[in-house]
Parts: sequence; structure tokens; C-alpha cells
Amino acid sequence: MAYFDAASAAPLHPVARQALLASLDEGWADPARLYREGRRARVLLDAAREAAAEAVGCRPDELVFTASGTRAVHAGIAGALAGRRRVGRHLIVSAVEHSSVLHSAEVHEAAGGAVTQVPVDRAGAVDPAAFGAALRADTALACLQSANHEVGTEQPVTEVAEACRVAGVPLLVDAAQSLGWGPVDGGWSLLTASAHKWGGPSGVGLLVVRKGVRFAPQGPVDERESGRAAGFENIPAIVAAAASLRAVRAEAAEEALRLRELTDRIRVRVPELVPDIEVVGDPVRRLPGVVTFSCLYVDGEALLHELDREGFSVSSGSSCTSSTLTPSHVLRAMGVLSEGNVRVSLPPGVAEEDVERFLAVLPGAVAAVREKLGAPVSETVVREDVLVVDSLGKRCPIPVIELAKVIGDVPVGGLVRVLSDDEAARLDIPAWCEMRNQEYVGEEPADQGTAYLIRRAS
Amino acid sequence: MAYFDAASAAPLHPVARQALLASLDEGWADPARLYREGRRARVLLDAAREAAAEAVGCRPDELVFTASGTRAVHAGIAGALAGRRRVGRHLIVSAVEHSSVLHSAEVHEAAGGAVTQVPVDRAGAVDPAAFGAALRADTALACLQSANHEVGTEQPVTEVAEACRVAGVPLLVDAAQSLGWGPVDGGWSLLTASAHKWGGPSGVGLLVVRKGVRFAPQGPVDERESGRAAGFENIPAIVAAAASLRAVRAEAAEEALRLRELTDRIRVRVPELVPDIEVVGDPVRRLPGVVTFSCLYVDGEALLHELDREGFSVSSGSSCTSSTLTPSHVLRAMGVLSEGNVRVSLPPGVAEEDVERFLAVLPGAVAAVREKLGAPVSETVVREDVLVVDSLGKRCPIPVIELAKVIGDVPVGGLVRVLSDDEAARLDIPAWCEMRNQEYVGEEPADQGTAYLIRRAS
Repeated sequence: MAYFDAASAAPLHPVARQALLASLDEGWADPARLYREGRRARVLLDAAREAAAEAVGCRPDELVFTASGTRAVHAGIAGALAGRRRVGRHLIVSAVEHSSVLHSAEVHEAAGGAVTQVPVDRAGAVDPAAFGAALRADTALACLQSANHEVGTEQPVTEVAEACRVAGVPLLVDAAQSLGWGPVDGGWSLLTASAHKWGGPSGVGLLVVRKGVRFAPQGPVDERESGRAAGFENIPAIVAAAASLRAVRAEAAEEALRLRELTDRIRVRVPELVPDIEVVGDPVRRLPGVVTFSCLYVDGEALLHELDREGFSVSSGSSCTSSTLTPSHVLRAMGVLSEGNVRVSLPPGVAEEDVERFLAVLPGAVAAVREKLGAPVSETVVREDVLVVDSLGKRCPIPVIELAKVIGDVPVGGLVRVLSDDEAARLDIPAWCEMRNQEYVGEEPADQGTAYLIRRAS
Repeated sequence: MAYFDAASAAPLHPVARQALLASLDEGWADPARLYREGRRARVLLDAAREAAAEAVGCRPDELVFTASGTRAVHAGIAGALAGRRRVGRHLIVSAVEHSSVLHSAEVHEAAGGAVTQVPVDRAGAVDPAAFGAALRADTALACLQSANHEVGTEQPVTEVAEACRVAGVPLLVDAAQSLGWGPVDGGWSLLTASAHKWGGPSGVGLLVVRKGVRFAPQGPVDERESGRAAGFENIPAIVAAAASLRAVRAEAAEEALRLRELTDRIRVRVPELVPDIEVVGDPVRRLPGVVTFSCLYVDGEALLHELDREGFSVSSGSSCTSSTLTPSHVLRAMGVLSEGNVRVSLPPGVAEEDVERFLAVLPGAVAAVREKLGAPVSETVVREDVLVVDSLGKRCPIPVIELAKVIGDVPVGGLVRVLSDDEAARLDIPAWCEMRNQEYVGEEPADQGTAYLIRRAS
């Protein structure tokens, strides 16, 4: 049994567990009260704030605890936008931010604000120059994650923060994926994070607002946490969060080296072991424990089930997670294949033999899924000089499988026209062309769905 | 050492502690994931939802877990108002709601909505007829607590819910103070509560929205908890919250009788033991464990310190808690004395001898504070036929002390004019008149502060 989804949530760190237990009896009372139990709770809360601030590299009075990383992002973006409303209503985000950032941007846009999404390259990183070029006189806030949650690519935060500083625009950094590994460098203005990503308990996020950054908390007034995080403080969980952050930091340098070696092994060997796989994300500038790849002709959900049966818990950005049917916006923004997507995110302390066993099991799991999907009857009709593949009503990865089957049936220079009404095809057909050195001509509306045109190049 | 502030936060119930520990290892993963750890977390979350729904008396799919009671109120009010925006933008609240409700109403008003505050009687209860009369054709939502958090008075929820039902207006009930004692009767539409009030951990609130109630969650989209509570679910705490709710309910009937007897004892004996005390709140329709009284000529903060030194942790609605300088809006709305205010809220399981010791200690504590404040030099000047007391710059309870000292200096029928710039005087001088059978004539603006006119009646 191996849990390889630390980027979603890490199991509770032993230090967090210890700190939680120790503070259940001391930290339940209202820290705003004057009596003994209240003062004891206040002492714990203050100490946790100091420890967290030291790990972040900020002043304790710049840091508040929220109920989750998502809440920290929502409150941070809303408060920073409102605080600079007089400057303007323009918001910049990268195209690969966490959904909590992008959904905050949607709300801002729906309320009449303007939003610029800065694109990323095929590795998932923004170009600092392009980010800087998006800054305008009316830009109220810019947001950039420290590292991507789906592919592990690190963003050029220092350079982007410098561009923002020069323009006088505050930069909010979502550090959810990286804070356990170290502080975020550069002159950022706001920072958010989530304790359960570093082995702290659920229910604790961080919101840091540097002194001097204009900030106007939104929503009903509440006196807790400097008015920036409404609701009774969850002190035992906060104490555990701060303690585990300190604990993982103490092990971070050594563990990062070890995990980086293990993920490098996966990056190199997976394409050797399994045909038609694309490893995505930056090979160098990346989180130590994350490696992501996509498998052609594979249904991501089916592959997760195969791997789960073999004892591996991994995640997927394919259009087939349990609660969503759209393919990952991150993979789409990178322009890489989304079908058969697997994210492996190793928790600190993972056993090397589990990684080896994963590499041993993966080829069979992929083959099993491909075999199940392998023989779809495709209705192909030759119309004029174009081979038409009707994949209407068929879900990813069937359209790509059908395209791959017929490409050899047209001469070099000939066209294949794939009809599909599955949104994932828009991403996966061009990605397949890039992987297979075929020419992607483009798409056009069809009577039903969309027609994708591919010219056989080789 | 006795903790008498259960209405703020109750210590963790042993069952909650047990459930929390048991689920730390099973409930940390993302319940939206398809793998083993995710499915295990989902099972725990579903079971907790069913248990909580049974205790509330609703369907599991009507109940979501929030990060606090405050967040439940904020989300519930905002969502219900938005869901019925086409009907109108009128909101009704009682004058003695929790600050989370009143601050939500402020936000609504600032955004152009209309708010009606329904007043309460001297016992702290709304009149159902008056509440019903506030309902309008454009009323989007009405809010009424099940019982008051400062004085323990139960509200006529069943009657008010019926009036709302007839008018087709949803009623949101803030059940934070009562849910541990039993389900809320009546045809309410939305309900909120907070686990740390019933011995659950911090970090868990409940928001119930009955099927058929129009509800439009506000803020950025988030798929968790049916889109009604953003952020990663805190499953171990949720499991503990549900388990402790069930546990306190099993003991509720018996414990309610016991606590009611103890608080009755305080209600009867405190005025016998300490002169110039007013016990406030409904003597019969009230929470079992809460009793509140105000002491003339006493500074509430000083009294809390005296009692803390004697080993008692109590709360105060006076203008002297650690984070606020305004007197309690609840006491103000009731028109009762706010100075020297003490709320005793007994936790289930409290020892009878602690209550007896409190009664033994209280007279000395009040006397000590009164002695310290006892000899203020008041500058009294006779001007025409009115005795003028200049209390400008002096904080509560000094103005009332000075009034009490001079009332005997004017003949029956004569006037005393107290000049004060302390906001608490507006409440406490009329309350003193009522307690002392003197005639409160009224107030008028003065060069500095406000002049309060009192006619000696006896």
C-alpha cells in the first residue's frame, strides 16, 4: 500500500499529531477572554503565530490563520483587490493557478473587474517578461503560485515579484505546494498556504499580508485574527500546523534530495517502460516530490482504478476525477496531452521500494487499460480526399485511439477529419500530433461537435 | 478552579477527543479522490453527516459542515439573501442576535439592502406578533436565534417560524447555544450551529438548508460541501463534532434538569447575597446552564479579574471585555443594566460544590471592586433648581455611582442632571432609575457629551 498523492493532502506528521494532542486540553478556550483558560489559549496561539511567521519569513503581526488554504486565497485576493480599488480593478493571474485563485478571478470579473491570464510554456512556467508586460496602471493585484500543484513546475517568483515591485503592484503568492520545502524568495506582498499539504492537520491555512500593503477585508466584520479570518480560532490545529511546519523544514534539505532522485527515476524510466507516454512539467525547476505523465490511448479514471487495485494512490488531471468531467486547466494551458494523466506526488519518508514497485506495476496497468479500450469499432467513411472519423458521443481517449488507427490509411500529405463532441479532444488531438510528428491543421465547427483536421506528415 | 463560560466554548467532550484521535489516521485524505484513503475519508464524512443530520432533524443532503459557526451564519445569510433576490432585499433580524448575524446584516445594508431589527422585551425575547408584523412582501429572509447567548432567554421560534411560513419567508435559526440540548422545533428553513459550543472541537460549524429553500452560495465557486462551504473538509474534527453531539444529547435531559436547578440557585441567591444586583433574562424560558446578572457601581472587567483570582472563569457583556469597549448590544436592546455584568454559563458535568463556592466568593469580590471605586470625587454644582453632576471623561460605572451619591441631596420632585460622555451611561442611568424607582426624564445634547435628567421620585 503506497500513498503517492501528497500534493492533495499529506498524512498527519507525527509531530503534528503530538502537538495536536498536547494542545487539545490547553487550547480549546476563547483566546479573547480575560480568564486563565483564555490566556492559556492566547499564549498557544501567539507562539504558533511566531513559529509560522519565522518559517514564512515575515513578522507575526503580518500572518493570520484561516480555516483552509482555499479560504486564505479567497480572503487574500478579495481583501487586496478591495484595498486597491481606487488604483483600478485589473487582476493578473497565471493560467495554471489553483482553482481557488481562478474562481476568485471569476468572481472579480463577474463583479465588473478585469482579469488577465498570463499563459505558460509547455513546461508549465510563466515567462517573467510576459507577466511583467501584463502589468498596467490600473492593476490592483497580481497572483502567481510558487510551484504548480499538478506538474510541480516552479514559477519564477523572484523575477515576477521584482517586476511587480517596480510597477508598484502587490504580488500574491500561493505557496501551498512549496512552503514545507522552504520560504518563498523574492519581494512578494501577500502569501497563502495550507497546513495539510505539509503534514499539518486539515482546517488551517495561512494568509500573510506584508505591512504597508493596502488590504480591506471583505465580508461581515469579525474581530478574530486582525479582522482577516472570521470565526473562532482552531487553536489545537493551529499549534499542530506550526509545529509540523517547523518539523518538515528541519528535514527538508535532506528529504528534497532523496525525493528528487526518486522522481528523476520515474521521469526517466516511465517512458522507457511504457510506450506512448509524455512526461510533463519542468525537468529541473520543479518540486522535489512531484512527477506527472500522460499516457496515450488511456482513460485516466480506469488507470487510477488499476493502480489503486495494485495498492497505489495517485491523482489525475484527466477529465475523469470523481467530481469533475473537464480536463485539467493546467494541462490545457501547457498544451500537453491530458488523456491517461497521472500525478505521482511522493510524501516525505516514502520508501524507495514502493517507488520501484510502482515502476514494476505501471506497464501492466497501462497495458490492461489499453487492451480494454483497444478495439472500438470506428465508423470511418472516405469523403472526397479526406478520411472522416466519426467519434461523436465517444469520450476521451477514444477519439485519439481512432485517429491513431486510421492515420496510416491515408497517404503522406492526406487529411484525417475527426468529428468529436468531447471537450478533451481539443487538447489531446493537437498533443497527439506533436508527439507523433503529424501536422495538426486546425479545428472547425461541424453539424455536431467539432471537426479536427490532421495532415499525415510522415 | 471552575470554568463557567461554556456559552463561549466548552472543553472538548471525552467522546469528541476519542473520535478525533480515532479518525486522525483515517480521515486526513481528500474525500473527493477515488483511491482507498480518499474512499475511507468519504465514508467517515458521510457517516458524520448522517449522525449530525439525525441530531438536527434534517436530511443528510440538507446539511453541510463549515469551518465555524460564524462561517455557517455568514454563508447561510448571504446564500439565502442571494437566492431570493428577485423577491426583494429586506432582511429581518432580532435585536439580540449573535454578532455574526448582525454583522451580516450590516454588510447587506451597506450593499443597498433593507434591514429591520425586531426589538425584544426586558427579558430578551421577541414578541412573535411584532416579528410577524415586520414581514413584508419584499422580505427575503428572517433570522432568529433559538436562545440568546448572553442571557440564555429562549426565543419563540415555533411561533415565528409559523408566521414566516404563512408569509412564504424562510427563517434562519442560529441554534449555536441550544443544539446540544435538543433539536430546534418548528418549521424553520435554515439552521446554523457551532460544534465547540457542545464540546466538539473548534473548526466545525453546521449549515442546514431545507430542500426547496432557494439558496445561491456566494463567493468563489468551490465544489466541496455541495458548493456551500469552500475549502478542504476537516474530517477528523467533523467526525469528533458529530460524535460529541450524539453524546451530549444522550445526557441532555438529565443534565438539563441538574443545571437548571443550579442556575435557579444562582438566580435566587445572588440578589440575596449581594445588594444592588439585577438578574436579567427570562427566569423560565431559558437555557439550562446560563444565568446573567449586573451589579450596580461595579466595573465588569475588575470583577472578572477578582473572580479569576478566586478561580472562576466567567464572561461579561459590560463595556470591558478584552477586545471591545462598547456595552453588549443584547443588554442594551433589553434595556437592562450593563455595568458590572457577569454571565455564568455552566458546562455539563459542573460540580455542585463549585457553584456553591462561587456563591460564597461573589459577595466579597463585588464588595472589593465597589470599595476600590467607592470614593470618586464628584464635582457637583447646583445651578438653578437642578443639581448638576459633571461626570465628563469618567468611564462606567462612575457616572451612576455619582448619581446615586447625590440623589438624596435634592428634594423629592427635584432634578439631577448628569453630564457624561460615556456611551454606557445611556443604558445604565435609565436602568438604575428603574431599579431604584426614580423617574428617568430623558436625555439632551450638552456642550460636551450628553445630559441625562433624573427626577427624584421617592
